[in-house]
Amino acid sequence: MSADSAAAGRDALLDELRALMAAHSPPLHALVVPSEDAHQSEYVSERDKRRQFVSGFTGSAGLALITMKEALLWTDGRYFLQAEQQLTNRWKLMRMGEDPPVEVWIADNLSDEAVIGINPWCISVDTAQRYEHAFSKKHQTLVTEKLKELREKLQHEKARGIIIAALDEVAWLYNIRGNDVHYSPVVHSYSIVTLHSAFFYVDKRKVSVEVQNYMTENGIDIKDYNMVQSDTSLLASGQLKGSAVNGSSHGENDMNENSKVWIDSNSCCLALYSKLDQYQVLMLQSPIALPKAVKNPVELDGLRKAHIRDGAAVVQYLAWLDKQMQENYGASGYFTEAKGSQKKEHMNVKLTEVSVSDKLEGFRASKEHFKGLSFPTISSVGPNAAVIHYKPEASSCAELDADKIYLCDSGAQYLDGTTDITRTVHFGKPSEHEKSCYTAVLKGHIALDTAVFPNGTTGHAIDILARTPLWRSGLDYQHGTGHGIGSYLNVHEGPHLISFRPSARNVPLQASMTVTDEPGYYEDGSFGIRLENVLIVKEANTKFNFGDKGYLAFEHITWTPYQTKLIDTTLLTPAEIEWVNAYHSDCRKILQPYLNEQEKEWLRKATEPIAASC
Amino acid sequence: MSADSAAAGRDALLDELRALMAAHSPPLHALVVPSEDAHQSEYVSERDKRRQFVSGFTGSAGLALITMKEALLWTDGRYFLQAEQQLTNRWKLMRMGEDPPVEVWIADNLSDEAVIGINPWCISVDTAQRYEHAFSKKHQTLVTEKLKELREKLQHEKARGIIIAALDEVAWLYNIRGNDVHYSPVVHSYSIVTLHSAFFYVDKRKVSVEVQNYMTENGIDIKDYNMVQSDTSLLASGQLKGSAVNGSSHGENDMNENSKVWIDSNSCCLALYSKLDQYQVLMLQSPIALPKAVKNPVELDGLRKAHIRDGAAVVQYLAWLDKQMQENYGASGYFTEAKGSQKKEHMNVKLTEVSVSDKLEGFRASKEHFKGLSFPTISSVGPNAAVIHYKPEASSCAELDADKIYLCDSGAQYLDGTTDITRTVHFGKPSEHEKSCYTAVLKGHIALDTAVFPNGTTGHAIDILARTPLWRSGLDYQHGTGHGIGSYLNVHEGPHLISFRPSARNVPLQASMTVTDEPGYYEDGSFGIRLENVLIVKEANTKFNFGDKGYLAFEHITWTPYQTKLIDTTLLTPAEIEWVNAYHSDCRKILQPYLNEQEKEWLRKATEPIAASC
Repeated sequence: MSADSAAAGRDALLDELRALMAAHSPPLHALVVPSEDAHQSEYVSERDKRRQFVSGFTGSAGLALITMKEALLWTDGRYFLQAEQQLTNRWKLMRMGEDPPVEVWIADNLSDEAVIGINPWCISVDTAQRYEHAFSKKHQTLVTEKLKELREKLQHEKARGIIIAALDEVAWLYNIRGNDVHYSPVVHSYSIVTLHSAFFYVDKRKVSVEVQNYMTENGIDIKDYNMVQSDTSLLASGQLKGSAVNGSSHGENDMNENSKVWIDSNSCCLALYSKLDQYQVLMLQSPIALPKAVKNPVELDGLRKAHIRDGAAVVQYLAWLDKQMQENYGASGYFTEAKGSQKKEHMNVKLTEVSVSDKLEGFRASKEHFKGLSFPTISSVGPNAAVIHYKPEASSCAELDADKIYLCDSGAQYLDGTTDITRTVHFGKPSEHEKSCYTAVLKGHIALDTAVFPNGTTGHAIDILARTPLWRSGLDYQHGTGHGIGSYLNVHEGPHLISFRPSARNVPLQASMTVTDEPGYYEDGSFGIRLENVLIVKEANTKFNFGDKGYLAFEHITWTPYQTKLIDTTLLTPAEIEWVNAYHSDCRKILQPYLNEQEKEWLRKATEPIAASC
Repeated sequence: MSADSAAAGRDALLDELRALMAAHSPPLHALVVPSEDAHQSEYVSERDKRRQFVSGFTGSAGLALITMKEALLWTDGRYFLQAEQQLTNRWKLMRMGEDPPVEVWIADNLSDEAVIGINPWCISVDTAQRYEHAFSKKHQTLVTEKLKELREKLQHEKARGIIIAALDEVAWLYNIRGNDVHYSPVVHSYSIVTLHSAFFYVDKRKVSVEVQNYMTENGIDIKDYNMVQSDTSLLASGQLKGSAVNGSSHGENDMNENSKVWIDSNSCCLALYSKLDQYQVLMLQSPIALPKAVKNPVELDGLRKAHIRDGAAVVQYLAWLDKQMQENYGASGYFTEAKGSQKKEHMNVKLTEVSVSDKLEGFRASKEHFKGLSFPTISSVGPNAAVIHYKPEASSCAELDADKIYLCDSGAQYLDGTTDITRTVHFGKPSEHEKSCYTAVLKGHIALDTAVFPNGTTGHAIDILARTPLWRSGLDYQHGTGHGIGSYLNVHEGPHLISFRPSARNVPLQASMTVTDEPGYYEDGSFGIRLENVLIVKEANTKFNFGDKGYLAFEHITWTPYQTKLIDTTLLTPAEIEWVNAYHSDCRKILQPYLNEQEKEWLRKATEPIAASC
């Protein structure tokens, strides 16, 4: 039998099949024909090749759907070409990964009353339940603007309103900042946004006339903080009305049509949740989280500038500390290796973890747009550096030591951006073990910085890149590799994350997101190492663009040299050595304008190229 | 106030708190004190530092649980040392990631009637729901033996029986093989195992006397294939009884106590599922999957030997094909680069994708313990190589071509093991683009082969290692990177997987699992490249063992050289070049005994060391 007549035979078969579907009681509007046998096997015997029989497609994986009008065949990337060759023109190829899955296609294209036929022996319980779920559920798209887009989103989800509890989301949505919480420029407040009104629940004594006018102009009602409870009940019963009326394009009956109330179960507390009828609750990630995380060009520009000023402050600090360590602790210093001599006799300055971090804050405070620190500075000597979130107390903190590693993780809030940087240094003679650990951490830090990956990749997938250099010697660190960072907002910001934690699986990285690159290694009781830069996700300029996905890469915006004394260059590849030298020459160019002559000289030495070991 | 008196103060506080808990109505058996404020913030204001107030621990992340007898503080790895320093000896530090989470601890240590107090403003809905879930759920452990251990598992899960539908699981459990399905040595059959009986549902005509006796000896009842349906109903109602009685240690009332019926929703079909009362269904991954995937020493030894014989067959095939291509297609051959001349005038042999793969099957069939192929050989020339699961048909398949890439993905079933290998070769002059793509695929193949990772790592996490070299130039492949492989069983075997697919997240890789390493690159209409070895997961010998996790690595057991002509050595690192040369010298040592003089000479040339490009 020729290929043509075989094709003709299959098309005839399609007609017979539809006749049988119509004759069936109840009549079938669609028939699903999977590849599996009664054992859900991958390879099946001849008599079980039902899907191949109806479609003519012989690949091992695939699923056929026959409706009265259409015949569709789903298969995966391994089989796209083969399926195109084997299917007649009465069949449509559905590409898994590109086209909607069969259950979504059915939900979107067939009426709710449609009767779908499937052989119950050839479908697993998993699959059957996934189908049922899809048939009874709509999908969500993303929002990209503030109040207006938020209301479109509410409308789209048939929600009459949303309760926003996360302080940075309220601050971002209303463009306000405050100082109710250390390190985060936020205000204790809630927001409720309905299709027609917006509310700001806050202690009114905190609201300036300027802010009051700004809110009124934008149709936002300011109410007392505690009113959020009773207003949540009103929202639930559809009786929450604001003074101003917005989005008047929406009819008056929206409140009745849209019965749902949106909460983000991650930030909404149980107390407010329990005021809602659980059937009306729409539990989805807050529509604020993603647009807040994807920075606009002005925010990105501000972040870059803030990080340059911040880097200058850290370099000034390291240069100052280097001098102090030599003068008061007999240290050989940042650039040379020798055991620290005894403390000088008539030492006039005592350096503690707290006193030096106060000095660092001073350098930052001298910079333009400085508003405060973005988190408690982690200034830690030797064993304290192994306490990952160590916070020194003036009363009990350790003294600096020329013979121990010093780790400093710090950041600031500037009007134009939030910063977060970690550097680890040694002012005397580091051990070979400390050097090889520092170098392994640096290799992971570079591997993440230089990663290229397709759109759709999550921070969960790339977390491993920063760990493999440590894993090779059986080392690891017990924290995530990176977190989003706010734009003059929280120093830790979601929804994305670079981590082994499951939550990092949910949000693909996107261009214009910020994220830190901070691998480390910690040895209890002796020392800790961490290196941290802030990165901006950007589009990558790859030679090819397989699958038209578009590829992403990172731009680092943190500027402070690594201590070359702690690098074992024999463990670096030529490419890694190039990366360090390029980063250092950039640091030199970018920071010089902010430094005095001594500081410039220190930076020049700190950024000397390291030699390739090949 | 001194640190001591502060500690004493906190201990006094603990007593007061317990008095209040007892006085509360209803009396609280435990009080949960989280770190968050009413907005689930990470950094909270002073008045909101409740957990710090009761515990004295000042870290930003943590949770306190106070029962009448104990006081426990959960925090993560960043804070272990700090918490140890700050907690008094009346507090117990619970290490997140090492100790059970608070909800599990409560479920395990407090009675079901215990009243747990928590401020509803300071717990997110997510967390509240996770707690409720945990309080109402038991956990599962792993099984590692066959019938006996399976019954212990049933007992543990309060299940009266399990329905096993996956053919390879039935084959593994009962140590039987068959030939009902091409390429997989399985029998169409079901198994039901109860606490006291075991059943084998199969067409009795297939059962030899030997198997019959073997089953009887092991207390397994052989029943007709179709009986599985009615027996499932009997199992549901607790009336399924076998002739033999095993596990007599269990009381007669087990069937009443243990009401659940275990199914793996991934392989059990809807038809059998619907015979069960949904409240009695225990839906968990099959307890057979993991022990089947973790090979015993005998299986591993057999797999290694089978892969050596299989590699010899593939080398014999490539040497033969090289000669044929030169003699009949004017190819410059495997070792030299030149455009293929016109086909020889009086050519006496025509080589097609099918005819050459038959030759390959011949070489395999000549090897000891050969039982057949493990899947349809993918023998593909040029554009056909881009059809990932291409299956040539004698009637329509392409002819070999001296100027096109040839991809061959094949494997066999041997009594001592199942094999799966892919090599991609060119007998003429490959383009620079083909070489750079081949080299990118090889880099990913090596990166996975040499990976070192801690126990607990999943195939989902390491999948990226095989892709990053391709991603760097915007290339990728639309299939997973590796699948488990059976021991004289299915060539594709779960439950683990190396893939971006979510299912690869569920099962950590374990020592003695098998998995393939097969990255690729496919260019529609022109060519395809794939390189595949089979790996065994083994314990890694790392210098350190951070976190006492134990680290894992891979042992490759596939032996056939890569075509050095297709490698652009300027794209390889020194370490990658070393890897290739070491692998090739092993191939030479291991395969020589199976080859004749010409084949040995060919292998010697094919395994010549490549030069480092430094």
